[in-house]
Amino acid sequence: MTAIDLSVDAARAALAPLRLGLSDDEAVDRYATAMWCQLVEPGDSVAGRVVATHGPVDALERLVAGAAFPDLTAREAVAAQKRWMPRLAPRGVTDAVRIAAARRVAFVTRRDAVWPTQLDDLQDHAPLCLWVRGDVSALTRLDPSIALVGARAASGYGDLVARELAAELAGGGIPVVSGGAYGIDGAAHRAALSVGGTTVALLAGGAERAYPAGHTQLIDDIADTGLVVSEVPCGSAPTKWRFLQRNRLIAALTTATVVVEAGWRSGSLNTAGHAADLGRGLGAVPGPITSPGSAGTHRLIRDYGAACITGADDVRELLGLPTAAAERSGEARTDDSTRVRDALSNRVGRDAAEIARRAGMAVDEVRTLLGLLQLEGVVHVGVDGWRTTAGRG
Amino acid sequence: MTAIDLSVDAARAALAPLRLGLSDDEAVDRYATAMWCQLVEPGDSVAGRVVATHGPVDALERLVAGAAFPDLTAREAVAAQKRWMPRLAPRGVTDAVRIAAARRVAFVTRRDAVWPTQLDDLQDHAPLCLWVRGDVSALTRLDPSIALVGARAASGYGDLVARELAAELAGGGIPVVSGGAYGIDGAAHRAALSVGGTTVALLAGGAERAYPAGHTQLIDDIADTGLVVSEVPCGSAPTKWRFLQRNRLIAALTTATVVVEAGWRSGSLNTAGHAADLGRGLGAVPGPITSPGSAGTHRLIRDYGAACITGADDVRELLGLPTAAAERSGEARTDDSTRVRDALSNRVGRDAAEIARRAGMAVDEVRTLLGLLQLEGVVHVGVDGWRTTAGRG
Repeated sequence: MTAIDLSVDAARAALAPLRLGLSDDEAVDRYATAMWCQLVEPGDSVAGRVVATHGPVDALERLVAGAAFPDLTAREAVAAQKRWMPRLAPRGVTDAVRIAAARRVAFVTRRDAVWPTQLDDLQDHAPLCLWVRGDVSALTRLDPSIALVGARAASGYGDLVARELAAELAGGGIPVVSGGAYGIDGAAHRAALSVGGTTVALLAGGAERAYPAGHTQLIDDIADTGLVVSEVPCGSAPTKWRFLQRNRLIAALTTATVVVEAGWRSGSLNTAGHAADLGRGLGAVPGPITSPGSAGTHRLIRDYGAACITGADDVRELLGLPTAAAERSGEARTDDSTRVRDALSNRVGRDAAEIARRAGMAVDEVRTLLGLLQLEGVVHVGVDGWRTTAGRG
Repeated sequence: MTAIDLSVDAARAALAPLRLGLSDDEAVDRYATAMWCQLVEPGDSVAGRVVATHGPVDALERLVAGAAFPDLTAREAVAAQKRWMPRLAPRGVTDAVRIAAARRVAFVTRRDAVWPTQLDDLQDHAPLCLWVRGDVSALTRLDPSIALVGARAASGYGDLVARELAAELAGGGIPVVSGGAYGIDGAAHRAALSVGGTTVALLAGGAERAYPAGHTQLIDDIADTGLVVSEVPCGSAPTKWRFLQRNRLIAALTTATVVVEAGWRSGSLNTAGHAADLGRGLGAVPGPITSPGSAGTHRLIRDYGAACITGADDVRELLGLPTAAAERSGEARTDDSTRVRDALSNRVGRDAAEIARRAGMAVDEVRTLLGLLQLEGVVHVGVDGWRTTAGRG
């Protein structure tokens, strides 16, 4: 049996470097949460359940005492004990806290006011805490926000599109969230920074270290004005499992995920899967069908119902926001269509020239809009011209 | 009152150049149909109704006699008389038949065995006859067939994609139908010819003349092994109206329409509208979002439910045919997915490495397929690994 000390003094001592003004209760709760964070891998739903049921302190005491967890099956309890116990050492928390304090990484739990409650949509798989570089209050300003993700080996096209989308969205006040990797992620972060927008990097390893190392400066720049976030304690290495779980966090933290460029079997499809699973918006940017780098995004559009994203306006639509560019906006399109429809009758047919005259629009424009209205089944063309479908019979 | 002669002798005399072995009845019926074809513009639903109700001969006699058409409103009858009567002259038919015979253009009516019955889906708007260069029996072999259409001002990308799709589809025995124009149409026809496949050009003017004139050789080549088809009589000029109506024929004649490249307000959207209207398959090829030439296809995918076409296999799927390339085919994908699912349990979690071992597949491949299965909601991941969703609770 491993002994650990969950006293107020032990908790205050361990957390001291973070210089938090905590009540006794808060100190112990937070210390126990940090301990759980040390014991479990991201997404451990069994830990999620026992901490939700008993609170971090009681759950930890039960674990240490070898007590039963009434809401676990015997099999789950045995497997969990086997997973968690080897990591049970106060040292881990002390080390993580020391690194965090040195690197100005904040430790945020579900009890903090800045906790991003959208993560609770992950239910038992939600993180128990976050380690955050930057102004933690920005955590509360991620609704709406957009995840822009994609291949590390981005093409020039993918890089350009990621930059354009990120600059326009971040410039318009929408935080751009990504994974800090090479390729699409880096392009999105950089473009958001370049326009003075907010950008958030979610890392698979500890928040104090840049991964990849080549992005050390970029990650520092992100922390200066935005956020660098991880759910694993400072000092943790990024593992394959943690990358996959990090993807679920990107999806959960944001309003929608857009895959900018991805090969046929890209890891970004994993993030897309989480977004769909969580009922978040999902979009993908098309590209040349001759480019293997767009095979994955086309797959998402074709087979998984991802919205076809052709510009920042489409992303705004995915986020449920009004679109920006007036001449391309849904409203403008609707207005033009409405003018055309107003110029139509359901009793007599009218030709495009007459409709154009009545609507005060160019004939070519009217002809296109009539085609689109026809696609919608709203208008109908006969030899005597166009009329609204109501009078088709 | 214009007098016309619908006697057997007059009919036989007018149709003589076509050297058809017709009964008296057939000769008169066909002559009257050719006359209607002369009187009306494509898609005239009023003509469609009266010819369907009374047959071409009786309907024509009624028209000439100024008799009432019981199934037309007074207003429709007056408008129709006004539209049709100015064109009532036997000379038109004689001229058209003479040109047709000289240019080896066949005159096909709904009574012919080769009539492509899928055109009847156009109901009152269906053509009354077709003028056809080439082996008319090919008209009966257009199910399935694919319309490949798009911008006249095609980009290098659009041209390449049109050629690749047309060559692979036509090479696989699927007739490729298009409009004979510059750009996407021409690329599709040429590629189909180059692989010895069947291709069909639907023209807006008379079938005896190439439009555009720069495609004279191409249209001749198409007629040699495929078909050149028009619903307007030989000698007719292509007008804007006839182009739009020609688009409805392209959509109606084929199993599905794929727009390869189209600007934001391209005329191809009109063909797409007809395809959707008729319940035919509709697909569009994505391209770079930075290319104005793909704005229209993205619009179809995004707003009008067009399938995202990334290759010939996607077209085959749209046509309801088995896909070709085994490693990319739906079956192969399903097989791989099935192996992964068979390696999963709904009771115990398994990690990707173990699933890969059980399925006899590479771990990376398994990981991607798990992500896709997760997108489908079929599998679920917890800290103890992947399991099928049935046992999620």
